[in-house]
Amino acid sequence: MAKPLVGIVMGSDSDLPIMEEAAKIFKKFDVPFELVVASAHRTPYRALGYAEKAEEKGIEVIIAGAGAAAHLPGVLAAVTSLPVIGVPINATPLQGVDSLYAIVQMPSGIPVATVGINAAKNSALLAVQILAVKYPELRKKFKEYKQELAKEVEAKAEKVNRSIF
Amino acid sequence: MAKPLVGIVMGSDSDLPIMEEAAKIFKKFDVPFELVVASAHRTPYRALGYAEKAEEKGIEVIIAGAGAAAHLPGVLAAVTSLPVIGVPINATPLQGVDSLYAIVQMPSGIPVATVGINAAKNSALLAVQILAVKYPELRKKFKEYKQELAKEVEAKAEKVNRSIF
Amino acid sequence: MAKPLVGIVMGSDSDLPIMEEAAKIFKKFDVPFELVVASAHRTPYRALGYAEKAEEKGIEVIIAGAGAAAHLPGVLAAVTSLPVIGVPINATPLQGVDSLYAIVQMPSGIPVATVGINAAKNSALLAVQILAVKYPELRKKFKEYKQELAKEVEAKAEKVNRSIF
Amino acid sequence: MAKPLVGIVMGSDSDLPIMEEAAKIFKKFDVPFELVVASAHRTPYRALGYAEKAEEKGIEVIIAGAGAAAHLPGVLAAVTSLPVIGVPINATPLQGVDSLYAIVQMPSGIPVATVGINAAKNSALLAVQILAVKYPELRKKFKEYKQELAKEVEAKAEKVNRSIF
Amino acid sequence: MAKPLVGIVMGSDSDLPIMEEAAKIFKKFDVPFELVVASAHRTPYRALGYAEKAEEKGIEVIIAGAGAAAHLPGVLAAVTSLPVIGVPINATPLQGVDSLYAIVQMPSGIPVATVGINAAKNSALLAVQILAVKYPELRKKFKEYKQELAKEVEAKAEKVNRSIF
Amino acid sequence: MAKPLVGIVMGSDSDLPIMEEAAKIFKKFDVPFELVVASAHRTPYRALGYAEKAEEKGIEVIIAGAGAAAHLPGVLAAVTSLPVIGVPINATPLQGVDSLYAIVQMPSGIPVATVGINAAKNSALLAVQILAVKYPELRKKFKEYKQELAKEVEAKAEKVNRSIF
Amino acid sequence: MAKPLVGIVMGSDSDLPIMEEAAKIFKKFDVPFELVVASAHRTPYRALGYAEKAEEKGIEVIIAGAGAAAHLPGVLAAVTSLPVIGVPINATPLQGVDSLYAIVQMPSGIPVATVGINAAKNSALLAVQILAVKYPELRKKFKEYKQELAKEVEAKAEKVNRSIF
Amino acid sequence: MAKPLVGIVMGSDSDLPIMEEAAKIFKKFDVPFELVVASAHRTPYRALGYAEKAEEKGIEVIIAGAGAAAHLPGVLAAVTSLPVIGVPINATPLQGVDSLYAIVQMPSGIPVATVGINAAKNSALLAVQILAVKYPELRKKFKEYKQELAKEVEAKAEKVNRSIF
Repeated sequence: MAKPLVGIVMGSDSDLPIMEEAAKIFKKFDVPFELVVASAHRTPYRALGYAEKAEEKGIEVIIAGAGAAAHLPGVLAAVTSLPVIGVPINATPLQGVDSLYAIVQMPSGIPVATVGINAAKNSALLAVQILAVKYPELRKKFKEYKQELAKEVEAKAEKVNRSIF
Repeated sequence: MAKPLVGIVMGSDSDLPIMEEAAKIFKKFDVPFELVVASAHRTPYRALGYAEKAEEKGIEVIIAGAGAAAHLPGVLAAVTSLPVIGVPINATPLQGVDSLYAIVQMPSGIPVATVGINAAKNSALLAVQILAVKYPELRKKFKEYKQELAKEVEAKAEKVNRSIF
Repeated sequence: MAKPLVGIVMGSDSDLPIMEEAAKIFKKFDVPFELVVASAHRTPYRALGYAEKAEEKGIEVIIAGAGAAAHLPGVLAAVTSLPVIGVPINATPLQGVDSLYAIVQMPSGIPVATVGINAAKNSALLAVQILAVKYPELRKKFKEYKQELAKEVEAKAEKVNRSIF
Repeated sequence: MAKPLVGIVMGSDSDLPIMEEAAKIFKKFDVPFELVVASAHRTPYRALGYAEKAEEKGIEVIIAGAGAAAHLPGVLAAVTSLPVIGVPINATPLQGVDSLYAIVQMPSGIPVATVGINAAKNSALLAVQILAVKYPELRKKFKEYKQELAKEVEAKAEKVNRSIF
Repeated sequence: MAKPLVGIVMGSDSDLPIMEEAAKIFKKFDVPFELVVASAHRTPYRALGYAEKAEEKGIEVIIAGAGAAAHLPGVLAAVTSLPVIGVPINATPLQGVDSLYAIVQMPSGIPVATVGINAAKNSALLAVQILAVKYPELRKKFKEYKQELAKEVEAKAEKVNRSIF
Repeated sequence: MAKPLVGIVMGSDSDLPIMEEAAKIFKKFDVPFELVVASAHRTPYRALGYAEKAEEKGIEVIIAGAGAAAHLPGVLAAVTSLPVIGVPINATPLQGVDSLYAIVQMPSGIPVATVGINAAKNSALLAVQILAVKYPELRKKFKEYKQELAKEVEAKAEKVNRSIF
Repeated sequence: MAKPLVGIVMGSDSDLPIMEEAAKIFKKFDVPFELVVASAHRTPYRALGYAEKAEEKGIEVIIAGAGAAAHLPGVLAAVTSLPVIGVPINATPLQGVDSLYAIVQMPSGIPVATVGINAAKNSALLAVQILAVKYPELRKKFKEYKQELAKEVEAKAEKVNRSIF
Repeated sequence: MAKPLVGIVMGSDSDLPIMEEAAKIFKKFDVPFELVVASAHRTPYRALGYAEKAEEKGIEVIIAGAGAAAHLPGVLAAVTSLPVIGVPINATPLQGVDSLYAIVQMPSGIPVATVGINAAKNSALLAVQILAVKYPELRKKFKEYKQELAKEVEAKAEKVNRSIF
């Protein structure tokens, strides 16, 4: 089995139902990945250690999903030079605005590539686009994927045009 | 000079104009403190190292001020058992709402005692209240401080009652 | 039975399902506590009287949970020199933002140590950290608690790594 | 001089530039009033005492202006049966949203009649409308005031119609 | 039957489940009232006509509940000199923030006494407090009501103190 | 069958349950319309092509509904000179605030006529009002429609007046 | 001089600096217009009367700008069948969010075509697009205007490409 | 001169003062780039055309900055398979929240890598991290840059420690 190119990190297994959408995309694109549970607050050194060693293990992009005061993506970004994608998770009465602000508003010098609230699927597609800078076959697959999306829209369009209500 | 009981940590010297209000309170209450610059994102190990060794150095309360995606208080709280007070700083167009949410909405298990936006003075008064649990003379001084506050209000009250407009 | 060190105050018994999470933590840490119902608006003197006499009764930390225009923590803080921890409760269509702002944005001079929305469990852990400044055995227990949290994350991590989907 | 019918309460003299707009309206309507400085947090008993004795002193409406975690109107309302009008003041980076929520979202049983952010002038006009329930001459004056407002709009309308740009 | 002193106006019968809480309070206090459906947007002249004639009909306070772009209270206030109480109703995905802002932020000259989101009960209690300026027996009843509230809290307090969990 | 005067565009068939409210209004007013599925992001040229050719096909008003980062109305407006009405759809944890801001805050030069969140029915009524500038018979029907609305309010008013609770 | 086709209504002359941007666009497009000051709250019948008679005077589109609890556009829309365009004005500490919500969230049946905060220029361009449904020469002019906009962007593009910094 | 690897796109030259911070980073890292002015709304085909041809021109990452209803990053992402980084710009009274939501909340299938409000510098650093997946010398430079950042913090730390106030 291939060495993982992407690490999908989450602070708790309660985030798995959201984050597994990222895993499904990587399976579809045949991008090897690994799922990692490491909390920025409960196991900070586990999280930092993962990010620190990710590059030498062959990881090329890190995805981190977190809710509430979502520090995980920023903490990982602090100790790696790999691109880090952050997924804000809707996990509190603030409806994900807390995690969105806690992820996207990173200070100057340490960016996190932020996607929409709960948008784990888009985080994986962004990772594919980033990897495609290096791996031309992923670019090709990504273009095919976009064509599929367009075809789905067209199929829906036909259905709607025939709808009677 | 006495060993510091409180560490005031900030991510950058640009936060000093806000955070020095905390230092002024400690001077007023004769609480020895130290000012520390350590960024959760630019120097994560400096920040973690400070929090890890704070207890054995004799620090009993940590105050951390941060703006934007304000991870500093939470990151320090992750690696210390000392109480950590967080000061959200208004440093972006989001007017401090970003740092407030990034500090106060800590996940279960790792609390941060959050004060108001830019409220460094209150963070120091809270630290005094916490230390007063152990040091009775601080409780006495704090009560005198509250009486001073009340007297100031009374003095203002008289001035306003005489105001003509 | 030991005299209570912590008073958990709430404005109504409708807040009990949230606030009892604090009580559970104190039971776990063997910290004696008492539950108090006293409304800042319906029984203001009951609330003020509790806070005024708390210190002489031996209370060392007050926790106050409140929703909506959540004045309880600030009102208690006005008349005690003990540290007051405020728990914003999600009790209106504003999803707890109203109580968060009404608790955390205290004016200069009267801090309230605010935790996340509905975060009664964290309020108790913060109280334990504050008490641990004085009681070394609580510091020891708190460190063990953090290790438990870390172990739970590690157990979840293994489960996730083996997950197939 | 007539006994005051309205008490205008504020937590600090820093709120005077906003709250004096209320005083101007009462002068215009010949409604006797008094200005009171009493902080819900720094001098809680001064504030409570004022509200408790207001009725027997002849006060019929209380206006309270406050910024940040604005508890003053609600605290006064807790101990009086007089109608209390709250004026949220824009005093923090949250632009008055904090004080608006802390005033308007009062729990069931203890209403505060809330006006707009910084709207001290409207608080006084509302007090006049409330007093006019009892004092018919105030109703008459209020109607004249509304006619004045309408005439001002008409005068502006003419000016704008002639404007060239 | 007595002539109504209060008019409870709503834009649609869909607001009745919220607004009937006001009616219940008036029944409890024996304040005669009427329920009126009149939309600021669908039947503007019905609404304006009601407000215009309310005073001569003997109405002394108007309560208006509205959701979304809640113009009803302000539109009524524009054509009456009676005090108008506005109840923002949570009726859209914006959770009542839209109606709160549309009611409380009235321009200078035309106040609306705003209560919390969905707080019809408080709107009626405020009306009772306003009427009590003129009718001393209502003041007495209101004081008794506050004592009842306090007793309820005390009863709850006992129950909670005995709670085991 | 008449050529469509209005195009109702949506990015996905998942928006149909919201947008069909617009279609119902057009059926009521006998305004010929067509339903179009075209995504600004998945099928941008399909969307642009539709807007570009709409005028020559006889379309006179375009309605576009979209959720999340709702670009569809603005993208269509960029390439047509027809009036474009935007319907923000509540489709994410941000409750439609995201789509409202993404639709209404169009830059100078390219307006989108925005209606309320999920307000597809109002978008169609606005289209009828716009078409009525040209087609007098639609103005007449629209006036009748407003009278119907008023009658419904009056019917509800009677029911409420008789309600006992 | 031609009879006005558009009425630009504002509640006060203080809104003129914002609303005159609309007038400038109408001058550019040779669309006759009139400026009207009429307040929904201070002169409600002046406002209603204007909207009621606008159609028979030959007005075909109404633009209304308002800040704070911005009721003017909705109130006009209630009594006319002409399309009404609303311009939310940033006039309070809430930065225009209050007026945006008070304008765009109109209840079902009475739409207001809302543009961005302070976007008076776009309100006029939208009015031109609406009038162009009836007047083909305006469509032609609007297309030329869009080409001008595009040329301006191209000119800026060249300047930026040559920029050195 | 080297062919550009990054295209920095903005809708107007008014965004240049923000976006030139990205250009400065690319100069520092010797990453060839080009500055492009192309508006999603005023020159949509110029924008789309740029994104469509970017890949074959050798561009590997696109950065797009936009304010208000910020559609530019999403529109470019719709027609390219390159990674697109979006920079929300604070350009309206909504303080950049409008552009943040309009950029980050992209629908499933078309991600935009979003950075903080006005964070053009971070957008460029993220682009460097993405390019470093392919170009090892950029990874080396990025690591050196992070060390510089850390040294700056340390230098500030010393200054603060010596500060007297």
